Amino acid sequence: MGFEFEFSGTGDARRVPVYGCDCPACERANRDPGQARRACSALVKAGGYTLMLDAGRTDLCETFPPGSFQAILLTHYHMDHVMGLFHLRWGAKHTVPVYGPSDSRGCDDLYKHPGILDFQTPMVPFTTVNLGPLKITPLPLNHSRPVLGYCIEHQGKRLAYLTDTVWLPESSLDWLCEHRPDVMVLDCSTPPKPEPPRNHNDLTLALELVNIIRPGRTLLTHVGHQLDEFLMMNPALPNDVGVAADGMRLEMS
Amino acid sequence: MGFEFEFSGTGDARRVPVYGCDCPACERANRDPGQARRACSALVKAGGYTLMLDAGRTDLCETFPPGSFQAILLTHYHMDHVMGLFHLRWGAKHTVPVYGPSDSRGCDDLYKHPGILDFQTPMVPFTTVNLGPLKITPLPLNHSRPVLGYCIEHQGKRLAYLTDTVWLPESSLDWLCEHRPDVMVLDCSTPPKPEPPRNHNDLTLALELVNIIRPGRTLLTHVGHQLDEFLMMNPALPNDVGVAADGMRLEMS
Ligand SMILES: [Mn+2]
Ligand SMILES: [Mn+2]
Ligand SMILES: [Mn+2]
Ligand SMILES: [Mn+2]
Ligand SMILES: [Zn+2]
Ligand SMILES: [Zn+2]
Repeated sequence: MGFEFEFSGTGDARRVPVYGCDCPACERANRDPGQARRACSALVKAGGYTLMLDAGRTDLCETFPPGSFQAILLTHYHMDHVMGLFHLRWGAKHTVPVYGPSDSRGCDDLYKHPGILDFQTPMVPFTTVNLGPLKITPLPLNHSRPVLGYCIEHQGKRLAYLTDTVWLPESSLDWLCEHRPDVMVLDCSTPPKPEPPRNHNDLTLALELVNIIRPGRTLLTHVGHQLDEFLMMNPALPNDVGVAADGMRLEMS
Repeated sequence: MGFEFEFSGTGDARRVPVYGCDCPACERANRDPGQARRACSALVKAGGYTLMLDAGRTDLCETFPPGSFQAILLTHYHMDHVMGLFHLRWGAKHTVPVYGPSDSRGCDDLYKHPGILDFQTPMVPFTTVNLGPLKITPLPLNHSRPVLGYCIEHQGKRLAYLTDTVWLPESSLDWLCEHRPDVMVLDCSTPPKPEPPRNHNDLTLALELVNIIRPGRTLLTHVGHQLDEFLMMNPALPNDVGVAADGMRLEMS
């Protein structure tokens, strides 16, 4: 059995293609929509339960009719991770529980006018909770806002979802080394940068984290157009590291 | 010649269909996408110049490639009128001038991270400016945030775009009576309400305003699903009043 993990979006805040950009990666995505990257998000499915991980896709209402998911779990309140909620909240006849980090600001007027969104008590770092059949452990990340990554566990299989982050706080790194994930989904927004990156991993930091944590397999997400262009020229990655794509599914069993 | 006005969206903040709603209006819009109402917005075209009026549609990048419009004019910074900017701002290689009311808050981090958006000095009520070949006069409206309506004039033809508003400030009402528009596009979000409406006109207030201002023709916009349902049962409106629809075009000549 186990669980299924589906990437519903793998792009950075600019998405791919970038509006008006004619770089090779954006031109490829314009020619072939299968290469486009929407807002970074995912669906986790187990035993008839579906959890939506981040809600930045603006077509949530059109794509996921009521009943398509039972709850939403947010990493943080940056617009590219919550934009879809601004329409979803005005839905009728049902409510949607929303879990996420402690962040008093939220995003624009989401807290003031939650509509059908039922914001839950904030998640507490390293305190495991059950959402449906899934065991979720929140892990603090390094970013310009309060962000939580999540270790998702079901029937002995572990997937760690770690975006948006630059490197990792020591406490989360230690936890992941002690609870080695079968799959790690990791923020890697840009190609290697000359200076230390801010807010998001470049490829150098991401691969260093893979070497320390040594998950069974790593998939890079939150990918920007410049990383896509870099990978078109330099496709070689370690054997256990891949690049996520919109629509990619992982069977965790 | 004159100018062309195209409704790119005519819905209220909930849009039509409302997510998960099975009222007759939402069911109709689900069956027939031509009856759907997107975020309230419009395009104004004259002599090769295109002005985008509000930017709430989330598919701006996909629908309007760079060069499709020369500037954006905002009525206000509520999410349903600016949401499309959160993607548009990350575009490449060109800038977009954005005009609008004075509002120190803006929306989320738009001012902090404007990207390609070039926010202009705020519009001043009753002070006419030229945007391309269009003469634009900002008119204060009544809403829960600073909002400006606009009288758009070109070659002697006048269109007043008045949303979001409940009734009108005395000064704007006087101005409109003195400068009777050929076409008035007016906020009418709901069917007649038992209590005085807040923030948006109901049909009662909208028709009273038509009687006072007496424009050549009035088109109601910012329409919610309950007004659509009401109009399915009560389609009779005064001869000079119609209901806008997504995609509707007016030739102002
Ligand atoms: Mn992000
Ligand atoms: Mn972020
Ligand atoms: Mn509105
Ligand atoms: Mn408004
Ligand atoms: Zn590009
Ligand atoms: Zn409805």
